[in-house]
Amino acid sequence: MRITIIGAGNVATHMAAAFKNAGHRIVQVYSPTMQNAALLAYHVGAEAIDNLAGINPETDLFLIAVKDDAIMDVAKQLAPYNKLVVHTSGATSISALEIFTGNCGVFYPLQTFSKIRELNFLNVPLCVEGADDDITNHLQHLAQTISNKVYRVNSDQRKILHLAAVFACNFPNYLYHVAEQLLNKNHLDFNIIRPLIDETAQKVQQASPAKVQTGPAVRGDEKTMQAHLELLDNDADLQAVYRMLSQAIIKMDKSE
Amino acid sequence: MRITIIGAGNVATHMAAAFKNAGHRIVQVYSPTMQNAALLAYHVGAEAIDNLAGINPETDLFLIAVKDDAIMDVAKQLAPYNKLVVHTSGATSISALEIFTGNCGVFYPLQTFSKIRELNFLNVPLCVEGADDDITNHLQHLAQTISNKVYRVNSDQRKILHLAAVFACNFPNYLYHVAEQLLNKNHLDFNIIRPLIDETAQKVQQASPAKVQTGPAVRGDEKTMQAHLELLDNDADLQAVYRMLSQAIIKMDKSE
Repeated sequence: MRITIIGAGNVATHMAAAFKNAGHRIVQVYSPTMQNAALLAYHVGAEAIDNLAGINPETDLFLIAVKDDAIMDVAKQLAPYNKLVVHTSGATSISALEIFTGNCGVFYPLQTFSKIRELNFLNVPLCVEGADDDITNHLQHLAQTISNKVYRVNSDQRKILHLAAVFACNFPNYLYHVAEQLLNKNHLDFNIIRPLIDETAQKVQQASPAKVQTGPAVRGDEKTMQAHLELLDNDADLQAVYRMLSQAIIKMDKSE
Repeated sequence: MRITIIGAGNVATHMAAAFKNAGHRIVQVYSPTMQNAALLAYHVGAEAIDNLAGINPETDLFLIAVKDDAIMDVAKQLAPYNKLVVHTSGATSISALEIFTGNCGVFYPLQTFSKIRELNFLNVPLCVEGADDDITNHLQHLAQTISNKVYRVNSDQRKILHLAAVFACNFPNYLYHVAEQLLNKNHLDFNIIRPLIDETAQKVQQASPAKVQTGPAVRGDEKTMQAHLELLDNDADLQAVYRMLSQAIIKMDKSE
C-alpha cells in the first residue's frame, strides 16, 4: 500500500517504520518543520515536505499523526484528494474526520513511544475503527500487517482506553520519579529499585492487579504508613499523594 | 552454612529456596501454623516446627522473616542460643535485634514476592546491614551466594528504600487495578493495556523517569485532562486521584 505520513513525532516515526518494514511504500512525510520531515523521510525512503500544498496525490492512505488540536485543520487540507484518511489519536473521535464523508478511520497504537527507544511494533496493540464495516475490515487487515495485536475499538471505548492508559502508564511513571527523588536525596542508587519496578509490571502480565497488591496499605499496617508519612514530613504534596493512594488501596475490592 | 528460617510467608519461602539452591543447609523452618512450616520445610529439606521451644541449636544463623510487629517477640525467644540473627524487614531498624548485643544484622530483599510466582533470586537486590563491620562483611559474603545485587544499606537508608518501594510498586499496582476496572466496566479486555504497563516499566530500566514522562499532564494538555475528568464524573475518588497526580506531574522538574 502507498502511505503518506502526516507528522514526524514519536507516533509518526514508529508507525512509518513499522509500515516500511512490513513492505508498504511510504510516499511522503509531512512536518511543518522540514528538518523533522527530512529525518523521518530519510529513514523510510520517502519524500519530505513541509507544506501540505506539496502533497503527492498518488497515495492510498493519509495517516495523520499530529497533535490532537491540529487534526481537524490538517484534515481540511487533505479533503480535496478524496483518499482514505486515518488519525492515530486515542482522545479524538472518528467524527473529527467527518469531512471525508465516510472514507476515514482511526489507527490508535496503545503504547508509550520514545524516539530514542526501539520497540517491536508487532507487539504494539493497535486499535482500529472505520467509518463503516468495509473500512473497518480494510483497516483491520492493514493493521495486521504491522501488529499481532489488533483490536476493533469504537470511539467511546477508545476514550476509555486513553484514560486507562494515563492510570497504567503516565501516573506510574510519575511515581517512579518520586521513588528516584527519594533515593537520590538519600544517596541511594535508583538501580536498587529498578528490578522492583520491572517485577511489579511483570506480575500483572498474567495476574489481575487486585490479586497481587502488596504493601502496608493493603495489609492495614497503620504503624508503617504513619512512619512513612513522618519520613515525608518536609513535603506536604507527597504526603497528600501517599495518603490518598493508601486510602484508595485500603478501600479497594480485592476480589476482582 | 546452617540456616534456620523463622517464618513461612512469601519472603521466608523465596529466601529459604534461594539459600537451599546456593548449597546452604536449611536446618528448621518455624511457623506458628504447622501446615505452613511443613510445606516450606518439605521444599527445602528441613525440619518443620510450630513452637520455638523446639529450636535446634545446631545452626549458624537465624533468619527472621515474620511480620514487623512480631520481630522483637521472636528475637527474645531466640536470644538464649547466642547465634547470629538477621531480620528481613525494610521498615524495621537493626536495633530491634539489640538483645543479641551485636551479633545481628539485616537481610532486606527489595522485591515484591508472591508464592505463586517464581523468580530468579540472583536478580533480587539484597540490602545488608551488620551490627559492626565484621558482621556486615560476613553478611555481604553470605548475600552474594544468593544474589548478584548486594548493597550495603544502613537502617535510615533502608527506611527510605522501603518508602520508595511503596511509590515504585504498591501505588503503581493500584493504578493498574484502576485501569483494569475502567476497561472491564466498558467491556474492554485488560490484555489490551498489558503491553503498555510492561513498556512503561522497561523504559525506566535505563532512563530516568522524568526524561520519559508522557501523557496529557506533562504536555499541559488541559482539554484532554478535562475530558478525562468528565469520563470519571461518576467517581469522585478517582477524579481526586486524577487531579492530584496530574497536578504533581505538571509541577515536576523534568531536568532530573
